[in-house]
Amino acid sequence: MIAKLDGEERALALRDLPEWAAVQEPDGIRRLFTFKDFTAAFGFMTQVALLAEKADHHPEWSNVYNRVDIILTTHDAGGLSRRDIDLAKQIDALL
Amino acid sequence: MIAKLDGEERALALRDLPEWAAVQEPDGIRRLFTFKDFTAAFGFMTQVALLAEKADHHPEWSNVYNRVDIILTTHDAGGLSRRDIDLAKQIDALL
Repeated sequence: MIAKLDGEERALALRDLPEWAAVQEPDGIRRLFTFKDFTAAFGFMTQVALLAEKADHHPEWSNVYNRVDIILTTHDAGGLSRRDIDLAKQIDALL
Repeated sequence: MIAKLDGEERALALRDLPEWAAVQEPDGIRRLFTFKDFTAAFGFMTQVALLAEKADHHPEWSNVYNRVDIILTTHDAGGLSRRDIDLAKQIDALL
Protein backbone atom coordinates (compact mmCIF):
# COMPACT_ATOMS: atom_id res chain seq x y z
CA MET A 1 0.00 0.00 0.00
CA ILE A 2 1.38 3.37 -1.03
CA ALA A 3 1.02 6.19 1.53
CA LYS A 4 -0.43 9.64 1.03
CA LEU A 5 2.20 12.35 1.52
CA ASP A 6 1.92 14.29 4.75
CA GLY A 7 2.09 18.10 4.86
CA GLU A 8 5.85 18.41 5.09
CA GLU A 9 6.61 15.73 2.50
CA ARG A 10 4.11 17.37 0.16
CA ALA A 11 5.65 20.83 0.54
CA LEU A 12 9.13 19.45 -0.11
CA ALA A 13 8.02 17.46 -3.15
CA LEU A 14 6.12 20.37 -4.71
CA ARG A 15 9.20 22.58 -4.42
CA ASP A 16 10.70 20.48 -7.25
CA LEU A 17 7.55 20.85 -9.37
CA PRO A 18 6.97 24.60 -9.75
CA GLU A 19 4.74 24.16 -12.81
CA TRP A 20 2.30 21.89 -10.99
CA ALA A 21 -0.51 23.22 -8.80
CA ALA A 22 -2.08 21.39 -5.88
CA VAL A 23 -5.76 20.50 -6.45
CA GLN A 24 -8.40 19.35 -3.96
CA GLU A 25 -10.88 17.22 -5.91
CA PRO A 26 -9.25 14.79 -6.31
CA ASP A 27 -6.38 15.48 -3.90
CA GLY A 28 -3.47 15.69 -6.28
CA ILE A 29 -1.50 17.92 -8.61
CA ARG A 30 -2.38 19.45 -11.95
CA ARG A 31 -0.55 20.96 -14.88
CA LEU A 32 -1.87 22.45 -18.11
CA PHE A 33 0.19 22.13 -21.27
CA THR A 34 -0.23 24.04 -24.54
CA PHE A 35 1.30 22.91 -27.81
CA LYS A 36 1.50 24.14 -31.38
CA ASP A 37 -1.37 21.97 -32.61
CA PHE A 38 -3.24 18.70 -32.06
CA THR A 39 -0.47 16.54 -33.49
CA ALA A 40 2.06 17.99 -31.04
CA ALA A 41 -0.39 17.64 -28.13
CA PHE A 42 -1.25 14.04 -28.96
CA GLY A 43 2.40 13.17 -29.55
CA PHE A 44 3.11 14.39 -26.02
CA MET A 45 0.15 12.37 -24.70
CA THR A 46 1.57 9.25 -26.33
CA GLN A 47 4.88 9.78 -24.55
CA VAL A 48 3.06 10.29 -21.25
CA ALA A 49 0.97 7.17 -21.86
CA LEU A 50 4.11 5.05 -22.25
CA LEU A 51 5.63 6.49 -19.06
CA ALA A 52 2.35 5.93 -17.20
CA GLU A 53 1.98 2.34 -18.34
CA LYS A 54 5.60 1.59 -17.43
CA ALA A 55 5.07 3.08 -13.95
CA ASP A 56 1.65 1.36 -13.68
CA HIS A 57 0.35 4.74 -12.58
CA HIS A 58 -2.11 6.55 -14.82
CA PRO A 59 -3.20 10.18 -15.12
CA GLU A 60 -6.68 11.70 -15.17
CA TRP A 61 -6.36 13.84 -18.23
CA SER A 62 -8.17 15.64 -20.98
CA ASN A 63 -7.33 17.18 -24.34
CA VAL A 64 -8.93 19.87 -26.47
CA TYR A 65 -7.01 20.49 -29.71
CA ASN A 66 -3.57 21.82 -28.63
CA ARG A 67 -4.20 21.76 -24.87
CA VAL A 68 -3.58 18.90 -22.45
CA ASP A 69 -4.75 19.01 -18.82
CA ILE A 70 -3.15 16.42 -16.53
CA ILE A 71 -4.17 15.61 -12.95
CA LEU A 72 -2.12 13.13 -10.95
CA THR A 73 -3.54 11.50 -7.83
CA THR A 74 -3.19 8.06 -6.23
CA HIS A 75 -6.52 6.35 -5.62
CA ASP A 76 -4.92 3.59 -3.51
CA ALA A 77 -3.47 6.24 -1.19
CA GLY A 78 -6.57 8.44 -1.14
CA GLY A 79 -4.56 11.40 -2.38
CA LEU A 80 -1.17 12.69 -3.47
CA SER A 81 1.64 10.13 -3.14
CA ARG A 82 5.26 9.67 -4.14
CA ARG A 83 4.03 7.94 -7.31
CA ASP A 84 2.44 11.19 -8.49
CA ILE A 85 5.58 13.17 -7.78
CA ASP A 86 7.73 10.64 -9.64
CA LEU A 87 5.45 10.62 -12.68
CA ALA A 88 5.20 14.43 -12.71
CA LYS A 89 9.00 14.66 -12.81
CA GLN A 90 9.15 12.20 -15.69
CA ILE A 91 6.49 14.18 -17.57
CA ASP A 92 8.36 17.45 -17.01
CA ALA A 93 11.52 15.79 -18.34
CA LEU A 94 9.76 15.15 -21.68
CA LEU A 95 9.57 18.88 -22.41
CA MET B 1 -18.24 27.83 -42.98
CA ILE B 2 -19.87 24.68 -41.70
CA ALA B 3 -23.50 24.97 -40.54
CA LYS B 4 -25.03 23.85 -37.27
CA LEU B 5 -27.62 21.10 -37.81
CA ASP B 6 -31.23 22.17 -37.42
CA GLY B 7 -33.72 20.19 -35.35
CA GLU B 8 -34.82 17.80 -38.06
CA GLU B 9 -31.31 17.16 -39.44
CA ARG B 10 -30.12 16.53 -35.90
CA ALA B 11 -32.87 14.02 -35.13
CA LEU B 12 -32.19 12.15 -38.35
CA ALA B 13 -28.44 12.08 -37.77
CA LEU B 14 -28.73 10.89 -34.18
CA ARG B 15 -30.92 7.99 -35.28
CA ASP B 16 -27.78 6.45 -36.80
CA LEU B 17 -25.79 7.01 -33.58
CA PRO B 18 -27.77 5.24 -30.83
CA GLU B 19 -24.76 5.08 -28.48
CA TRP B 20 -24.23 8.85 -28.54
CA ALA B 21 -26.17 11.23 -26.31
CA ALA B 22 -26.93 14.86 -27.06
CA VAL B 23 -25.23 17.29 -24.64
CA GLN B 24 -25.88 21.00 -24.08
CA GLU B 25 -22.57 22.50 -22.90
CA PRO B 26 -21.03 22.47 -25.42
CA ASP B 27 -23.86 21.75 -27.88
CA GLY B 28 -22.76 18.40 -29.26
CA ILE B 29 -22.79 14.65 -28.74
CA ARG B 30 -21.06 12.47 -26.17
CA ARG B 31 -20.16 8.83 -25.79
CA LEU B 32 -18.42 7.01 -22.94
CA PHE B 33 -16.23 4.02 -23.73
CA THR B 34 -14.91 1.39 -21.33
CA PHE B 35 -12.01 -0.92 -22.15
CA LYS B 36 -10.14 -3.78 -20.49
CA ASP B 37 -7.31 -1.59 -19.25
CA PHE B 38 -5.31 1.57 -19.93
CA THR B 39 -3.40 0.09 -22.86
CA ALA B 40 -6.63 -0.79 -24.64
CA ALA B 41 -8.14 2.64 -23.88
CA PHE B 42 -5.10 4.54 -25.09
CA GLY B 43 -4.79 2.31 -28.16
CA PHE B 44 -8.35 3.33 -29.04
CA MET B 45 -7.50 6.99 -28.40
CA THR B 46 -4.58 6.72 -30.81
CA GLN B 47 -6.88 5.41 -33.52
CA VAL B 48 -9.35 8.23 -32.85
CA ALA B 49 -6.50 10.80 -32.92
CA LEU B 50 -5.50 9.65 -36.40
CA LEU B 51 -9.10 9.84 -37.67
CA ALA B 52 -9.51 13.29 -36.10
CA GLU B 53 -6.32 14.66 -37.58
CA LYS B 54 -7.23 13.29 -40.99
CA ALA B 55 -10.68 14.92 -40.77
CA ASP B 56 -9.15 18.10 -39.30
CA HIS B 57 -11.85 17.85 -36.66
CA HIS B 58 -10.83 17.16 -33.08
CA PRO B 59 -12.68 15.85 -30.04
CA GLU B 60 -12.94 17.25 -26.53
CA TRP B 61 -12.05 14.14 -24.59
CA SER B 62 -10.76 12.76 -21.34
CA ASN B 63 -9.36 9.48 -20.08
CA VAL B 64 -9.14 7.87 -16.66
CA TYR B 65 -7.47 4.45 -16.76
CA ASN B 66 -9.77 2.24 -18.88
CA ARG B 67 -12.44 4.87 -19.57
CA VAL B 68 -12.60 7.35 -22.45
CA ASP B 69 -15.16 10.16 -22.59
CA ILE B 70 -15.57 11.81 -26.00
CA ILE B 71 -17.56 14.97 -26.78
CA LEU B 72 -17.90 16.12 -30.38
CA THR B 73 -18.92 19.66 -31.19
CA THR B 74 -18.04 22.13 -33.95
CA HIS B 75 -16.76 25.46 -32.63
CA ASP B 76 -16.92 27.07 -36.07
CA ALA B 77 -20.61 26.20 -36.32
CA GLY B 78 -21.47 27.05 -32.72
CA GLY B 79 -22.78 23.55 -32.11
CA LEU B 80 -23.43 20.12 -33.58
CA SER B 81 -22.60 19.85 -37.29
CA ARG B 82 -22.26 17.21 -39.97
CA ARG B 83 -18.55 17.00 -39.13
CA ASP B 84 -19.39 15.66 -35.67
CA ILE B 85 -21.79 13.09 -37.09
CA ASP B 86 -19.22 11.92 -39.63
CA LEU B 87 -16.46 11.59 -37.02
CA ALA B 88 -18.80 9.79 -34.59
CA LYS B 89 -19.60 7.21 -37.26
CA GLN B 90 -15.91 6.70 -37.97
CA ILE B 91 -15.22 6.27 -34.24
CA ASP B 92 -18.05 3.75 -33.89
CA ALA B 93 -16.62 1.82 -36.83
CA LEU B 94 -13.36 1.29 -34.88
CA LEU B 95 -15.11 -0.91 -32.34
